[in-house]
Amino acid sequence: MTGGGHAVIAALRDALGPRALLSGDAVGARYCSDASLTGSCLPRAVLRPDTVEAVAAALRICNAAGQSVVPQGGLTGLAGGANPRADDIALSLERFAGVEEIDEASGTMTVRAGTVLESAQSVAAAAGFLLPIDLGARGSCQIGGIVATNAGGIRVLRHGQTRENVLGLEVVLADGTVITSLNKAVKNNTGYDLRQLFIGSEGTLGVVTRAVLRLRPAPAACHTALCALRSYGHVVELLKRAQAALPGLSAFEVMWESYVRFNEEAERIRHFVDRPSLTVLLEQQGAEEDAHRFEAFLADALEEELIGDALIAQSQKERDSFWAVREGHQMDRLLPGLINLDVSMAIGRLGDFAETCGQRLARRFPDAHISFYGHLADGNLHVAVSVPTSTDQAAAEVSRITYELVRQRGGSISAEHGIGTLKRPYLGYSRSAAEIELMRRMKTALDPNGILNPGKVI
Amino acid sequence: MTGGGHAVIAALRDALGPRALLSGDAVGARYCSDASLTGSCLPRAVLRPDTVEAVAAALRICNAAGQSVVPQGGLTGLAGGANPRADDIALSLERFAGVEEIDEASGTMTVRAGTVLESAQSVAAAAGFLLPIDLGARGSCQIGGIVATNAGGIRVLRHGQTRENVLGLEVVLADGTVITSLNKAVKNNTGYDLRQLFIGSEGTLGVVTRAVLRLRPAPAACHTALCALRSYGHVVELLKRAQAALPGLSAFEVMWESYVRFNEEAERIRHFVDRPSLTVLLEQQGAEEDAHRFEAFLADALEEELIGDALIAQSQKERDSFWAVREGHQMDRLLPGLINLDVSMAIGRLGDFAETCGQRLARRFPDAHISFYGHLADGNLHVAVSVPTSTDQAAAEVSRITYELVRQRGGSISAEHGIGTLKRPYLGYSRSAAEIELMRRMKTALDPNGILNPGKVI
Ligand SMILES: Cc1cc2nc3c(=O)[nH]c(=O)nc-3n(C[C@H](O)[C@H](O)[C@H](O)COP(=O)(O)OP(=O)(O)OC[C@H]3O[C@@H](n4cnc5c(N)ncnc54)[C@H](O)[C@@H]3O)c2cc1C
Ligand SMILES: Cc1cc2nc3c(=O)[nH]c(=O)nc-3n(C[C@H](O)[C@H](O)[C@H](O)COP(=O)(O)OP(=O)(O)OC[C@H]3O[C@@H](n4cnc5c(N)ncnc54)[C@H](O)[C@@H]3O)c2cc1C
Repeated sequence: MTGGGHAVIAALRDALGPRALLSGDAVGARYCSDASLTGSCLPRAVLRPDTVEAVAAALRICNAAGQSVVPQGGLTGLAGGANPRADDIALSLERFAGVEEIDEASGTMTVRAGTVLESAQSVAAAAGFLLPIDLGARGSCQIGGIVATNAGGIRVLRHGQTRENVLGLEVVLADGTVITSLNKAVKNNTGYDLRQLFIGSEGTLGVVTRAVLRLRPAPAACHTALCALRSYGHVVELLKRAQAALPGLSAFEVMWESYVRFNEEAERIRHFVDRPSLTVLLEQQGAEEDAHRFEAFLADALEEELIGDALIAQSQKERDSFWAVREGHQMDRLLPGLINLDVSMAIGRLGDFAETCGQRLARRFPDAHISFYGHLADGNLHVAVSVPTSTDQAAAEVSRITYELVRQRGGSISAEHGIGTLKRPYLGYSRSAAEIELMRRMKTALDPNGILNPGKVI
Repeated sequence: MTGGGHAVIAALRDALGPRALLSGDAVGARYCSDASLTGSCLPRAVLRPDTVEAVAAALRICNAAGQSVVPQGGLTGLAGGANPRADDIALSLERFAGVEEIDEASGTMTVRAGTVLESAQSVAAAAGFLLPIDLGARGSCQIGGIVATNAGGIRVLRHGQTRENVLGLEVVLADGTVITSLNKAVKNNTGYDLRQLFIGSEGTLGVVTRAVLRLRPAPAACHTALCALRSYGHVVELLKRAQAALPGLSAFEVMWESYVRFNEEAERIRHFVDRPSLTVLLEQQGAEEDAHRFEAFLADALEEELIGDALIAQSQKERDSFWAVREGHQMDRLLPGLINLDVSMAIGRLGDFAETCGQRLARRFPDAHISFYGHLADGNLHVAVSVPTSTDQAAAEVSRITYELVRQRGGSISAEHGIGTLKRPYLGYSRSAAEIELMRRMKTALDPNGILNPGKVI
């Protein structure tokens, strides 16, 4: 470490107190990488402030010294966005946690950035509300990380992405300025909507410290079905009808045959005797009495041969078995080095994309597992690939082949996981030079010394 | 006009052609002001480009010459945002109009900025969709103006503000750079979400040229009721229950007694014999068969004495008569110089706000008409005040009294109409110095020469 480096650490220790700073051997290996497992460096130090003032003081010191800072939440990110380099300082929000307020009349919750999603969800549930943001990483990911990645998840169709559920935000800028906009009303057009700058900026424009989140009424019941379909055209038609007929439609997940086959075998379940080329998991939140309408909708679709077959979950156990196939919890274990890409595009193009991408990948990697599944209503498809002798080079080739087809279809190479470090080489596949230049301008305006998460996103 | 001024006009005429430029006597009076009727200057010239390239060329020339430009849409704004000063050039999008595409599978529409909202709505309807953005100014306001003001309107509760309905955007920056992000997927986390910068920026950060808007299925039926309530606490409780029980809830409009009285008298209608202190207009979009649930919901609320009485519209005519009171179309005519403020705050605070604000205003202006109504679920209240001998000074006093109470409650002085010129003196009532400084930084980053709509917002 340089002399300057030592001086910064000393200044930070003075300002924040010894409990808020880990350095040397005290820096645990877990601060090395997010869930992509692509990080390999310990940061120079880990800051663990437990007040907004401490976050501000830390950034003021680092900014003055030109010391780079990597914000860290629950480290469940999949794009390498929270991975430090050896001379970065990690700023973890883990000690600034807790729900500060539930406002029942406004249906909002004010939460500290370090709060784990699942604990925020429980506090909401105890007050009779649903916190609509939900994703598989709920047990570890933090509100700050969710805001910083504009996380999607399994309820976007009904309640929107994180962006649509953040009413207010508090952020500390690179220079330590605290921007507090803890607005609670849905409508607020007083000048530029500063929240939007930070949501999805992956820690490169500011450090999120607090958020006001929208809550929804807890749904009374949930109706779930698995449908067998013959063609992608039928899937699109079914989606259109479901959106019109089922106001509480909360999931419309599509799975291609090889995805269902792999996961049914892994889970030792078999839903349809003849495995269809496309399976749709349909879910509607609402009242008990909606069951009738849900069944009638499926009966109509069967009669018109839009779907070939349908199973309606008769119990929570059956519902769980539908979702088990969709969530594919065994995949990571059974397919080590699984590559999971996350793309989006116009819905009409996804069918052809999946077909072409499947063929291209199979031609290049004949022995690979290749499967497709996604949140169709969001235009979002995941591409799961496991190459037997997986190497970094193979992963890069899978990305290139897939992203090239995304580029040709005007799509996005990252629907929900963000850019981080892993997708940075491919940003130009989805963004024009003018767009990237404008992102740079924003970065320079907000973080002129470039201390916040350098090397990420752009 | 200075020599430099003449040279700019000549360069613009050369670049865009004579049809795209009005100057001298050809500049009609309508380019003077938006619907606030507070503008009084003719602009130096009016540009009417009909291609994106022409918009870009115009801005390049103006930027190089330091010539200020005021983007103009349908001129229905209520904040003076599109009013030119005498040495500004107006840039009207009126000749760049039309729907370019409906993508049925994605449920999206690609529209030029100059398209009038109502005509975009018709094109969507003809394709079997609902364009969810809707407001009273639909016959004149343009998609570009709607995006630039992040317009709200009467369907926010169900479908969100404009921001939530813009999937893709094309914008020309002050220096003529075209940023084309005509994304169609709901999810897209590839770097900073540049759309968000421009939505709601009132023409100060870029000129909107095209947008991809989200469409929804056209609702099959609509159920509408008028409810009589005793207290604001009951209104909040009714909202909470309606949100839980009625998935297609599309309007929850609350009106205080003096608002209902004035408009019922103006429309020669009488809904409740005993006029209640608070009236709620409740609407649910959905299927015909939802009528049963809607009625059961109201019956329960009656039985529990949450509401004192309820009328369910039995025909389109009855529905129109409920909305006629809510929309108050006669107010502007009967109350010349009507001041209409548009504020928002946490829902729990609105009841006390209305009471206190009503008292303060009545004390200061004993003979004034003072009434309150709003989109409660959005935390949005309108304050309508008509002072008998209305002067600019009285209007300023009404604003100050009202906004001071908004400030004390941490609310917003502009829920939907924007800041423009009229609310610029009060921006600090809702935004901290740090927030305003950050807005300035963004403005400087995007428009370093300050040519776009100077004197507006900040
Ligand atoms: C099992 C599993 C399932 C997942 N499912 C989904 C899914 O359905 N949808 C989805 O979108 N994602 C999903 N993810 C990805 C990941 O969970 C999300 O991106 C999550 O939002 C990351 O939160 P985190 O707190 O773990 O952030 P981290 O991984 O710690 O950080 C993510 C990024 O945010 C920045 N950051 C973190 N905290 C802050 C802060 N307070 N201020 C500023 N910047 C900050 C970091 O610098 C980094 O760039 C999943 C991941 C796993 C492991
Ligand atoms: C009867 C009536 C009812 C209304 N109801 C509502 C309502 O319910 N909700 C609501 O939010 N508003 C409402 N408004 C206000 C107004 O209609 C909206 O603000 C509308 O979005 C303005 O659109 P416009 O095209 O008329 O914009 P203009 O008035 O022409 O301009 C508004 C602002 O946007 C900028 N602008 C316009 N076009 C562009 C462009 N292409 N690129 C960049 N900047 C541009 C202008 O510079 C100006 O700052 C109402 C107005 C009236 C008269």
